[in-house]
Amino acid sequence: MKQSQLFTKTFKNVSKDDTSANAQLLTRGGFIQKLGAGIYSFLPLGLLVLKKIENIIREEMNVIGGQELLMPALHPKEIWEETGRWQTADYLYKLQDRQEKYFALGATHEEVITDIARKYVFSYKDLPLYLYQIQVKFRDELRVKSGLLRTKEFLMKDMYSFHASEEDRKEYYEKVKKAYVKIFERCGLKVLVTEASGGIFSKEYSHEFQVATPAGEDIVYFCPNGDFSQNKEIAGKKTGDKCPECGKTLEETKTIEVGNIFTLGTKYSNPMKAMFIDKNSSKKPIIMGCYGIGPSRLIGAIVEVHHDDKGIIWPEAIAPFKVHLIVIEGKEDKKIKDTADKLYQDLQAKGVEVLYDEREGKTAGEKFADADLIGIPYRAVISKKTLKENKIELKKRDEEKTKLINEEEFIKYVG
Amino acid sequence: MKQSQLFTKTFKNVSKDDTSANAQLLTRGGFIQKLGAGIYSFLPLGLLVLKKIENIIREEMNVIGGQELLMPALHPKEIWEETGRWQTADYLYKLQDRQEKYFALGATHEEVITDIARKYVFSYKDLPLYLYQIQVKFRDELRVKSGLLRTKEFLMKDMYSFHASEEDRKEYYEKVKKAYVKIFERCGLKVLVTEASGGIFSKEYSHEFQVATPAGEDIVYFCPNGDFSQNKEIAGKKTGDKCPECGKTLEETKTIEVGNIFTLGTKYSNPMKAMFIDKNSSKKPIIMGCYGIGPSRLIGAIVEVHHDDKGIIWPEAIAPFKVHLIVIEGKEDKKIKDTADKLYQDLQAKGVEVLYDEREGKTAGEKFADADLIGIPYRAVISKKTLKENKIELKKRDEEKTKLINEEEFIKYVG
Repeated sequence: MKQSQLFTKTFKNVSKDDTSANAQLLTRGGFIQKLGAGIYSFLPLGLLVLKKIENIIREEMNVIGGQELLMPALHPKEIWEETGRWQTADYLYKLQDRQEKYFALGATHEEVITDIARKYVFSYKDLPLYLYQIQVKFRDELRVKSGLLRTKEFLMKDMYSFHASEEDRKEYYEKVKKAYVKIFERCGLKVLVTEASGGIFSKEYSHEFQVATPAGEDIVYFCPNGDFSQNKEIAGKKTGDKCPECGKTLEETKTIEVGNIFTLGTKYSNPMKAMFIDKNSSKKPIIMGCYGIGPSRLIGAIVEVHHDDKGIIWPEAIAPFKVHLIVIEGKEDKKIKDTADKLYQDLQAKGVEVLYDEREGKTAGEKFADADLIGIPYRAVISKKTLKENKIELKKRDEEKTKLINEEEFIKYVG
Repeated sequence: MKQSQLFTKTFKNVSKDDTSANAQLLTRGGFIQKLGAGIYSFLPLGLLVLKKIENIIREEMNVIGGQELLMPALHPKEIWEETGRWQTADYLYKLQDRQEKYFALGATHEEVITDIARKYVFSYKDLPLYLYQIQVKFRDELRVKSGLLRTKEFLMKDMYSFHASEEDRKEYYEKVKKAYVKIFERCGLKVLVTEASGGIFSKEYSHEFQVATPAGEDIVYFCPNGDFSQNKEIAGKKTGDKCPECGKTLEETKTIEVGNIFTLGTKYSNPMKAMFIDKNSSKKPIIMGCYGIGPSRLIGAIVEVHHDDKGIIWPEAIAPFKVHLIVIEGKEDKKIKDTADKLYQDLQAKGVEVLYDEREGKTAGEKFADADLIGIPYRAVISKKTLKENKIELKKRDEEKTKLINEEEFIKYVG
């Protein structure tokens, strides 16, 4: 895409209301635009990143048998009353329509998916079942903060699993755990799979996927060997304690939670009467699990971890483009522009996602600063200097050094 | 996909609360599930159709320069007050959070997109600009009806265009008109491009894209020559009047509106002060247009037009699968199942989207009835009879006749 035609703009300064790196850099880079406290639009650049993340999540959910559906955000009061959460969930946005009927805005979808399950699942033969959606959620947050990390409206991949036995649920739980680690790895994040409270309905731990960063608001004690990690909220540990698995000294870190998985058991199926007939012809409540990742929050976490003082450093798999091609025009020499135009066409023909900065009236310095801010992994420059040697100047966003290579090598490199 | 593994079920009978063909057939076929009045989930089969429609819309929007973004559904009251619509838009869902701040749920996004424009557009050089999203909308409908045709929550592709001159806006309006006709054609719908009221802010007509069907709730007078169509609400015409263009006799039809395009002019840019500097360095309000299609409503309209008494007849481009492969097993002959399994694999290897009904314990009659209900364009049967001749029985959903062809011909046919 030609940068002059892309709907984006970079800003040197934006409001300092929210000084988090993700809010600052994503806004300055033209990825997101704030509408109100904790409410953001994704501009075209931001949406490109979001879609890449969504597709990675979809791929990994499908690998473990997930089937995608799409549930509504407007929930009749009655369905939340069935589980008693209409009263207890204080983060629910509630509203009344013109006919004085009450609704909640979906902050989560256990009630709605359980309603679907009780209409579609009758027998153990219908189980197990893994259903997920990528859909917008709403939470009446008392204190929004840190850009995309805590917002009132956000995207969520929420998966719900349905099982005939607790053993089957446990087995699937471990499968999801592995799929989650893979998703975060593909998004460029190393996560601590962290034990946390299972909630009042389960004696078992839930698991949080925590990314270590000074920008985090959770605190986790973990073993550097990777065999233990617990959220401070439940840990009877402190820094310097020994790892119960290997005896190594535990460390403490601030973290951002990017995903979580829960045992639900029959917490929802029981009150909502989502039953199935088991092999022995007896009626039982379906056993459930649930598994969440917030793709929009994930973008925030990725930026917190992958940036420097110049801007964002996107991991390749989720970058809005792979190559940022920049032409530095000398007025005197039309050949520079022609060479860059041709390289742009060649890259597109090869299917390389390229953002082409052919903007007129911008200095080399301005273009480089914008490229650093936007954070595309490979920067390719065509200038008077490179033209003389019939080369391309290549620089990776996360490295300092540049190198001159010819087009063939370059396309092999990024193709 | 194997049908035994697909999360869907067919129902012979569902609630008769809503007798519209689309509500009945989409629910019976396992495409959608009602959560409440005018609120639906899209089950995996329904979501497949929805995504195909969304992609057709995206492709055609991108062809005419559209750039996709994603705006929020939660709108602070203040932004709707800027245009005065907080008071006047009675279809707005309004809510108050725990901190007593008011919000509207986005029923449309003129305010939000104009807010983005005023932060990103400064000069005529930034124009024209075409931005769209595919996003969920909410309307406090007093009377929901007809399945997906009138709901409280629905998907919308809303595009907004921004121009430096009225001439430019007009030109683009005609471009969108053509793109819309193409979108509906690709979705299997012939539309009447129908003049309608431009609203109180414009002397010009708006245009509705109307599909003729007895299930419609609008009434349109149109010339069978295709050169005139007007909504009854504004038409100073009646059946039997002459077409003002060609003199032919006008006809009347019931219709479903599947899209509309509007002149906005400076209706929103003026009060919201979305200004630009023109070529002569003077400050002017940006000239706008808006263009909507409801992908979920579109599914409803397509089913109303394309069904028979047995079920849905999906147009090929938006069908959830292209081929419905059915195996009719004789207990005696494992070869039947093996042959069907192999054909399933061959079709998948060729990239043909196939739903494979390998369910055990279902009769041929039940499988055929489900296939007719679900409405996939090509039905392929492997049975004792076809195996004897080493052929496949092929039937198109919209034809009565079946024919026996060999695998090579079949794959050529559907590949």
